[in-house]
Amino acid sequence: MSKKNALYCQSGGVTAVINATACGVIQTARNNPNVGTVFGAKNGIIGVLREELVDTAQHSDEDIAALKHTPGGAFGSCRYKLKDMEAQRAEYERLIDVFKAHNIGYFLYNGGGDSSDTAFKVSQMAKARGLDVTCIGVPKTIDNDLPVTDTCPGFGTTAKYIATSIMEASLDVESMAESSTKVFIMEVMGRHAGWIAAAGGLAGKSHNEPPQIILFPEIPFDQAAFLARVKWSVDNHGYCSIVVSEGVRDQAGQFLADAGTVDAFGHSQLGGVAVVLAQLVKEQLGYKYHYAISDYLQRSARHLASKTDLEQAYAVGVKAIELAVAGRNSVMPVIKRLQDDPYQWEIATAELKDLANVEKMLPREYITEDGFGITDACRKYMQPLIVGEAYPPYNKNGLPHYVRISQHLTDKKLPVFDI
Amino acid sequence: MSKKNALYCQSGGVTAVINATACGVIQTARNNPNVGTVFGAKNGIIGVLREELVDTAQHSDEDIAALKHTPGGAFGSCRYKLKDMEAQRAEYERLIDVFKAHNIGYFLYNGGGDSSDTAFKVSQMAKARGLDVTCIGVPKTIDNDLPVTDTCPGFGTTAKYIATSIMEASLDVESMAESSTKVFIMEVMGRHAGWIAAAGGLAGKSHNEPPQIILFPEIPFDQAAFLARVKWSVDNHGYCSIVVSEGVRDQAGQFLADAGTVDAFGHSQLGGVAVVLAQLVKEQLGYKYHYAISDYLQRSARHLASKTDLEQAYAVGVKAIELAVAGRNSVMPVIKRLQDDPYQWEIATAELKDLANVEKMLPREYITEDGFGITDACRKYMQPLIVGEAYPPYNKNGLPHYVRISQHLTDKKLPVFDI
Repeated sequence: MSKKNALYCQSGGVTAVINATACGVIQTARNNPNVGTVFGAKNGIIGVLREELVDTAQHSDEDIAALKHTPGGAFGSCRYKLKDMEAQRAEYERLIDVFKAHNIGYFLYNGGGDSSDTAFKVSQMAKARGLDVTCIGVPKTIDNDLPVTDTCPGFGTTAKYIATSIMEASLDVESMAESSTKVFIMEVMGRHAGWIAAAGGLAGKSHNEPPQIILFPEIPFDQAAFLARVKWSVDNHGYCSIVVSEGVRDQAGQFLADAGTVDAFGHSQLGGVAVVLAQLVKEQLGYKYHYAISDYLQRSARHLASKTDLEQAYAVGVKAIELAVAGRNSVMPVIKRLQDDPYQWEIATAELKDLANVEKMLPREYITEDGFGITDACRKYMQPLIVGEAYPPYNKNGLPHYVRISQHLTDKKLPVFDI
Repeated sequence: MSKKNALYCQSGGVTAVINATACGVIQTARNNPNVGTVFGAKNGIIGVLREELVDTAQHSDEDIAALKHTPGGAFGSCRYKLKDMEAQRAEYERLIDVFKAHNIGYFLYNGGGDSSDTAFKVSQMAKARGLDVTCIGVPKTIDNDLPVTDTCPGFGTTAKYIATSIMEASLDVESMAESSTKVFIMEVMGRHAGWIAAAGGLAGKSHNEPPQIILFPEIPFDQAAFLARVKWSVDNHGYCSIVVSEGVRDQAGQFLADAGTVDAFGHSQLGGVAVVLAQLVKEQLGYKYHYAISDYLQRSARHLASKTDLEQAYAVGVKAIELAVAGRNSVMPVIKRLQDDPYQWEIATAELKDLANVEKMLPREYITEDGFGITDACRKYMQPLIVGEAYPPYNKNGLPHYVRISQHLTDKKLPVFDI
């Protein structure tokens, strides 16, 4: 078997542990005699098209090891979806040219649903062209919306962050409620699926512990029921703690975030569902409120990583190289749950075609009947994913030791390509 | 010396380590033969007026120890400022009645600037009435705006959280910037003073590392200069990371947060300076943005406590009891810096009258000339405050072990008092 090079791409929104996957890929490749150079594509597939490849041989073992505890995407990521082959033949031709020019035999694409689709298309293209490139999808997304796999690397850490944060903030608002803030709202990501919002429910042992309300994208917003439950919570607990998904929609299917505020120029202001709810609570119930919008903090909080998530993120990286070298084209290493409690899992192999463009929504049976909480079934599924702590090392200055690896590019061999 | 009881109150916005101070108070009192019962006032001074006192004898040593790693205010806090004695004589009479009824000889008031004022007034009242009550202020505020003391317990942990969070989110936006988000904005607390915003600057080693822009309440917002620096940062680094204080004002002195969005009802929307800036960046420069509002998360993030801060929070609690028993009326234990590097400090004693109602603003020399960053002088002061990690213990379910102590009240001896 001749030695071939590997090309690793990060794609889509990054996570706190995607670099742990990169670490798994590179460390495993360094120990595998069938793999030559490992290239990281600068800014994902855009970097492949531009022939902007980072030769990871320039990085010390120490730097590569440090990727395991560094958030963000070390090589840069992108939001760029290849169209189908007929519509955008030039891009696929370019990928082939770059693969050939740099002797790429293993193509590893680390991303979510869209990325699985891209990896699948590239694998089909390679096969059609008789190119000896093994294409592997590698799972990643805080949204946890990939099918087949038990969970998606990145989600467990976000879930731990959300559950811990709402637990802490709830203790805060509970302290203040007698004379000040009575309602606290935390807005979280998840435009389509409520997995991240559901993670907030892990903070309490039951539906009546904080957060007393979770608003899911899967459940149309019922204003009267919402206000009644806020009031119930304040009447019974003295305060109300709320987790809301950015993707909550009204009965007509419109994003709540779109319905609310307009900016100084009269334009609709996106991404502020927390503000809309806060105003509603103030207007209708007269309660003082506070709200937080966790945004990127929830997907970059490596300081609060789930050890389980970290181990899975690393393991899919390791397996991706193993599958590539074994010639398993068009597959993805996924997580298979063997047992709930104690949680046991292993890495299995799924076909990319089964993963591409399918969104796994939060099942209705994971949401309580009233639509405002999570069920025991949800806890049983989700709790194991946040177990264990995996702190980054800290510098003497009190900050985590995160690494920025060199982005020095390998020499280009092809003409410029405009994208 | 006859045995007297102690009354401990939490006041104002709580912090991630105010319960560590409570722990220091109670543990020290338990070992001091001159202190009888330690009462915690339920919801601060409101609880004193209502004679709602929690006898901490009901709490196990284990629960009290757990306060050291539990955020929020274990006894409840309040925002309630006593007026001067002439205007509100009935309230002061009531305090005296409660002190007498429960044999209170030590009154410990744990709060910020307003609270120092309250503690001072109570001490004056007690003296005027010949009451044998020693009144001690105990410092606490994430705002870090108390004079005299080197820092305020609570601030160091918030600072560590802000610096770590913007460091992590900056790695995230840096990964995404090529094809997606170019500007990330994190809104932090600090209505009047820029200490918390300044903490964001610790994330980089210099003014040109992320966050590339900090907006302080002390510096009037200069829109043209701001936009120019955003553009400079995107041109030179590919992205721009911004920390903004909620208290930033325009040249006319109006809060920027007030100038921007209006809600669906046409009312001005407070607390959204991040949104105002994001819109500005979008309109004027066309960059895609993301923003986070950390709100209560930044003051309850016990999971990321500064060890230095935690030790100081505990130490002021210990010293508060020692000063009380020594009869040092109308004082506050404060932190005195002995040395910058390595940071050395001790607990000193200050007069409450020197602390009441004085706000310590961020000195101009802590802000770079262009108004968008922190200087080396600021780093020298602030860096030591975030040093060291002090994780809470975690349960097997992956969440911190935080304690909720019983709020069972001691029997009332007085008639009802309406506040």
